[in-house]
Amino acid sequence: MKLIEDCTVGIVGLGLMGGAIALALRPLGPRRILALEADGETLEAAKAQGVINQGLLMGKDDPTIILGQCDLVFLCLNPSTLLRFLETWMAAFRPGALITDIAGIKGNIVKAVERTLRPDLDFIPGHPMAGSEKGGFANAKHCNFQGKNYILTPLAQNKPENLEFLKALIHRMGFGRITETTPEEHDRKIAFTSQLCHVIAAALIDCEADTEITRFGGGSFEDLTRIAMLNAPMWAELFLENKTELLQRIEQFEGSLDSLKALITGGQGEGLEQRLAAVRDRRSAMNG
Amino acid sequence: MKLIEDCTVGIVGLGLMGGAIALALRPLGPRRILALEADGETLEAAKAQGVINQGLLMGKDDPTIILGQCDLVFLCLNPSTLLRFLETWMAAFRPGALITDIAGIKGNIVKAVERTLRPDLDFIPGHPMAGSEKGGFANAKHCNFQGKNYILTPLAQNKPENLEFLKALIHRMGFGRITETTPEEHDRKIAFTSQLCHVIAAALIDCEADTEITRFGGGSFEDLTRIAMLNAPMWAELFLENKTELLQRIEQFEGSLDSLKALITGGQGEGLEQRLAAVRDRRSAMNG
Repeated sequence: MKLIEDCTVGIVGLGLMGGAIALALRPLGPRRILALEADGETLEAAKAQGVINQGLLMGKDDPTIILGQCDLVFLCLNPSTLLRFLETWMAAFRPGALITDIAGIKGNIVKAVERTLRPDLDFIPGHPMAGSEKGGFANAKHCNFQGKNYILTPLAQNKPENLEFLKALIHRMGFGRITETTPEEHDRKIAFTSQLCHVIAAALIDCEADTEITRFGGGSFEDLTRIAMLNAPMWAELFLENKTELLQRIEQFEGSLDSLKALITGGQGEGLEQRLAAVRDRRSAMNG
Repeated sequence: MKLIEDCTVGIVGLGLMGGAIALALRPLGPRRILALEADGETLEAAKAQGVINQGLLMGKDDPTIILGQCDLVFLCLNPSTLLRFLETWMAAFRPGALITDIAGIKGNIVKAVERTLRPDLDFIPGHPMAGSEKGGFANAKHCNFQGKNYILTPLAQNKPENLEFLKALIHRMGFGRITETTPEEHDRKIAFTSQLCHVIAAALIDCEADTEITRFGGGSFEDLTRIAMLNAPMWAELFLENKTELLQRIEQFEGSLDSLKALITGGQGEGLEQRLAAVRDRRSAMNG
């Protein structure tokens, strides 16, 4: 099996997640960590802190110098930038390289990859279920991977030894449960657990202009809306890329909200209490 | 000014909040802490742990023995039980006693109190903005007051020295910000920060039957739905007691959700991004 110690790792995009992945990989002793990043100050900071060995400016320097050296590449870009990057630099990857990504949607990414990937490259689509409402490389150290979920949507042609290597590496980075599923299933579930939750948090903030409202907060409002401090371009992309699933989830949620509203409107105390008790039991049966 | 060391404190209802208040008061050295509680095992546990000095079984023992001794009484009951208790035992309170409550709605409570309160008693309505998804006295120690908000809706006739005493005590129990407002303002704001959030969490759980969905969780879903493990009878009551304000808040929220949905349906990336950026900025301007 491949050893991380023998790998030169490339991180494309040193934002919150790219930075956090570099930080988690560093103590595992990869041969080198190289980075491509559009922001010069981030690159300098990452080098100064010893997080990466070398970096090049994306959109300015020629990335082939870096891509040609990497045995393992983490693409940590927004979906649209990721697809553009793959298309532009497909020829530059090191022969036989293992590539993975972190995008929050998988269906469209997998379709594009299956259409364009060089046959010698092995692309294993992934989605680390971690993050922070504070973005950027500067906050990467606050992005906690310990015990978090990681979703993989492997392709039929993925090499088993590469999949095993990546899974072991993900666990060594701190993640807990790894779930392997199809891109379709991923997008359907994530539309609920992630995108719908962000839409709800955004709607909650959208409908109340009083920033002093937190004087009346007891934790619920704060917990429900922390994720409203979102990376707007990225989430706008994720919502639209997974539009069909997300709209269906919004409508399901609206259905449940309507039926709770009807119980309240009708003053049906007993029915309301029963419904809330069923909700409590179901939530208690869930982890996390 | 009154000193807590000279006070015999009564806690009516040793649930999560009553228990947490008793635990927070104990180290401040009140003369005695007495309790009325419907559950015998809870009373025994509270005595055995030294949280209370003495307790009587509500609904069985005669509470006048305790109420007649208390200089300060915390009523820690659901709204309907609280109003019934006040009505039944109004004559039993110690002359001149200071009474406060913790109910999550204030308008209906204040109206009833103003109608029925003995003129020598001083009732200061309150709402500690703390809690836990795990209820009952056994979880009271996990109910953290540190830095939390506390709302008071004082009555015109409250004695200034009693109000000052209670506020100082609230701070000494660990609470941070105390906000004084009207019952109407309280109910309007709380309908948003607390009740609407609980309705949303309940609707989210209501619309997804798969308890394994947390394999796809990255923290957002968990944070948004933790409060769905709710005390069903209490929240059913709170929703219905504050029905008008809550329904208005649900409709405001639905309006914002609809307009986000329209941007997603229409594939309006730019408009969506702008709206999300405005949401991020507003949430960032809020505390907590």
